[in-house]
Amino acid sequence: MASSARLDKVLDSLDRGLPAAIERLKRFLRIPSISTDPAFAGQVREAAEWLRDELAELGFAATVEATPGHPMVVARTPAGTRRSLLFYGHYDVQPVDPLELWDRDPFDPAVEETSSGKVIRGRGAADDKGQLMTFVEACRAWKSVHGALPDGLILLFEGEEESGSPSLAGFLRDNAERLRASLALICDTGMYADGRPAITTQLRGLLGEEIVIRGADRDLHSGSFGGLAANPLQVLVTALAALKDTQGRVTLPGFYDGAPELSDALRADWDVLGFDAGDFLSQVGLRHPIGEPGRSGLEMVWNRPTLEINGIAGGYAGDGFKTVLPAEARAKLSCRLVGTQDPAAIRAALHAHIRSFLPDDCTVEFHPHGSSMASVMDISDPAFATARQALTEEWGREAAFIGAGGSIPVAGDFKRLLGMDSMLIGFGRDDDRIHSPNEKYDVESFAKGARSWARILAALE
Amino acid sequence: MASSARLDKVLDSLDRGLPAAIERLKRFLRIPSISTDPAFAGQVREAAEWLRDELAELGFAATVEATPGHPMVVARTPAGTRRSLLFYGHYDVQPVDPLELWDRDPFDPAVEETSSGKVIRGRGAADDKGQLMTFVEACRAWKSVHGALPDGLILLFEGEEESGSPSLAGFLRDNAERLRASLALICDTGMYADGRPAITTQLRGLLGEEIVIRGADRDLHSGSFGGLAANPLQVLVTALAALKDTQGRVTLPGFYDGAPELSDALRADWDVLGFDAGDFLSQVGLRHPIGEPGRSGLEMVWNRPTLEINGIAGGYAGDGFKTVLPAEARAKLSCRLVGTQDPAAIRAALHAHIRSFLPDDCTVEFHPHGSSMASVMDISDPAFATARQALTEEWGREAAFIGAGGSIPVAGDFKRLLGMDSMLIGFGRDDDRIHSPNEKYDVESFAKGARSWARILAALE
Repeated sequence: MASSARLDKVLDSLDRGLPAAIERLKRFLRIPSISTDPAFAGQVREAAEWLRDELAELGFAATVEATPGHPMVVARTPAGTRRSLLFYGHYDVQPVDPLELWDRDPFDPAVEETSSGKVIRGRGAADDKGQLMTFVEACRAWKSVHGALPDGLILLFEGEEESGSPSLAGFLRDNAERLRASLALICDTGMYADGRPAITTQLRGLLGEEIVIRGADRDLHSGSFGGLAANPLQVLVTALAALKDTQGRVTLPGFYDGAPELSDALRADWDVLGFDAGDFLSQVGLRHPIGEPGRSGLEMVWNRPTLEINGIAGGYAGDGFKTVLPAEARAKLSCRLVGTQDPAAIRAALHAHIRSFLPDDCTVEFHPHGSSMASVMDISDPAFATARQALTEEWGREAAFIGAGGSIPVAGDFKRLLGMDSMLIGFGRDDDRIHSPNEKYDVESFAKGARSWARILAALE
Repeated sequence: MASSARLDKVLDSLDRGLPAAIERLKRFLRIPSISTDPAFAGQVREAAEWLRDELAELGFAATVEATPGHPMVVARTPAGTRRSLLFYGHYDVQPVDPLELWDRDPFDPAVEETSSGKVIRGRGAADDKGQLMTFVEACRAWKSVHGALPDGLILLFEGEEESGSPSLAGFLRDNAERLRASLALICDTGMYADGRPAITTQLRGLLGEEIVIRGADRDLHSGSFGGLAANPLQVLVTALAALKDTQGRVTLPGFYDGAPELSDALRADWDVLGFDAGDFLSQVGLRHPIGEPGRSGLEMVWNRPTLEINGIAGGYAGDGFKTVLPAEARAKLSCRLVGTQDPAAIRAALHAHIRSFLPDDCTVEFHPHGSSMASVMDISDPAFATARQALTEEWGREAAFIGAGGSIPVAGDFKRLLGMDSMLIGFGRDDDRIHSPNEKYDVESFAKGARSWARILAALE
């Protein structure tokens, strides 16, 4: 049988099996695997075991593996002639509060008709149980047609993604040899805003820093001390303001080292998306994009670094007024990083900058909060073009290479610890309400997501 | 009898009457006249009535007069040949919590021996019942010698000083004609730091402003929006930092209009005090005075204006990190004002400054918090030199003309509403623990305070 005929059979199998696949997903969704709440530890394990059993029944060599936190599920097929692929998803879910804002029990999922089509409603439907099951269902249909699972597959399902992935890096480090593949597939993202299929090929990195400036050993009365005593809030504000010039460019020496100009190819790809920054901002009550002149909105969010003040606290902030000179002032800052910007070098430059503003009577303390370089995938790997073509065929629309303004730490970990690039392909929609009450996943995303993976598996053969 | 002989008799009378005067003060201190706590409203009134009865018994025409809050006590003697004087004090006290830090019942006062002499311990001993009674005792002794009270006296005792004096301005306005005198005497301050007798001749004014800058209608994810959306904290920090130049001078146009250079006479007076800014700051863990080059420490605190950030709040300030662009950022600022600086003009300049930094997508809201001009007394009134001489004679040390970095609103109200300058003369010590547990008033302050007033009354005759 020609491979295209076999693919058609796999797709047929997926279509016929959709009702059963939805019932399987509903069983998975009924397990309240809330990883951040220790009271649900038993249910998190139950979800891992459910997944292992499903995968074992399909013919994977599947195990639940201990970590210092919630377990990992690892499943694999024998190495063969295909290029090896590691597929990643997570089986834990967000908490459900405020429960009173849900229209149904978050762990009693159901298919609902909505004005935009059928949806599967329930916690975890989109993030990430429904998404990870698209790949499992593609494997099931593959096996029903081919008589065997695709070879060279490693499936890795995490149970701590919603609580900061504390065990992930250690697990990858300890199991690097058996988890390394030629490419990772990560299914935890969405389509482009307008529903266009997309592969996320670059993610910004992140650098967080808390700054604490201290002066006197107590809050001072501004009448008695004002004019003589250093005010840590004044020092903080002066130092922070000097981090940017009047055009909003970051003034730290070397900050832009490694921040690359967008390639012409990606620029052309992104231009096609028709992103309108004003429209985008209007969803949160804004209209006027800030940012460097001459750069597009998507470029600003996906391919330019930022330095933002995330929080400041100091002095009296309650009702009314206290004319104090505060003893202490705190700020939390973070940078989004692109290209090969070096978080360590930027952190050092930030420290030097703040210290240069300290008067004799003030001290500063720094608390680092995470640091990751940007993830920029090597899209010259032909898998990217191949997957893009497969997505385009499935959805009947040109699939896009897109970026992401945020960070997806697992992609960075795969690169750093396993030397593996990732193709981030997901089928979520902007209105899926992940992390919120009434989370849903479109039945179309679930069905065509599985079909997309079947096409990608076939094309990468 | 010559006036100096009569004064000696008055002073003798005070010395002989000291034990009885202390017993009277203790009766007064037993009344828990906590003005800020509605539960004590009855006791506040009881203190007013106790005072009225004392004064009436002495021969004053004394009344308890209603206000929208706690009552005023007004007492007077007939107009005569002496220049009219209004004496001000307050009969309400601060709350006593934390009660467990008191070594005795705050309302069961007693005379205690301490390493630095006898003290009267109890809430209100120094602030302000003990201080106001120094004047009442001086009047009592005066009468015992002269057979009559000094003429031309008005006594005004407030019951809301510790709760922000909400009724004072209205009462002064409504009773301006009957309360106006040639000069006010206010006994609610202390001696100079080293125990030198002092007259406070200038007080800084105060201007408070809260600034609220708003951007998006919710906190934004810095990955999705960073680089495109305006950050209200960034806007706030930039605008606040630009309020000062690199030398710390305030940049608001017109800010220094009306801020006078110190007169040579006062500069000489202040230099004698031997203030050491480094020593002063060392009590709060600092060592290095900031402030304009070429100006003395006392000049900075008493005769130069300030602009201080008293509090900032915005974004995430809890444990850990949230990479938000906050929807809102708030700051509280205050200025200490000198000379004839105009709070209204400065407020307008501040508003214009902040607005000039607003990007299109941000709004600003201002909340004024009080405004008072500096109080600068006309020390060419010979009463100041006369009183200074009287204090010098009583204490055996050269009395000082001093300033105060803070504000005493009643002095401003007397000037603004009654056109009256004030002589602020008090006998408190830095270690009196006013507003704190274990408040005390030195018996020496009480005794020599009364003697000081007797001398001043005699000298101003």
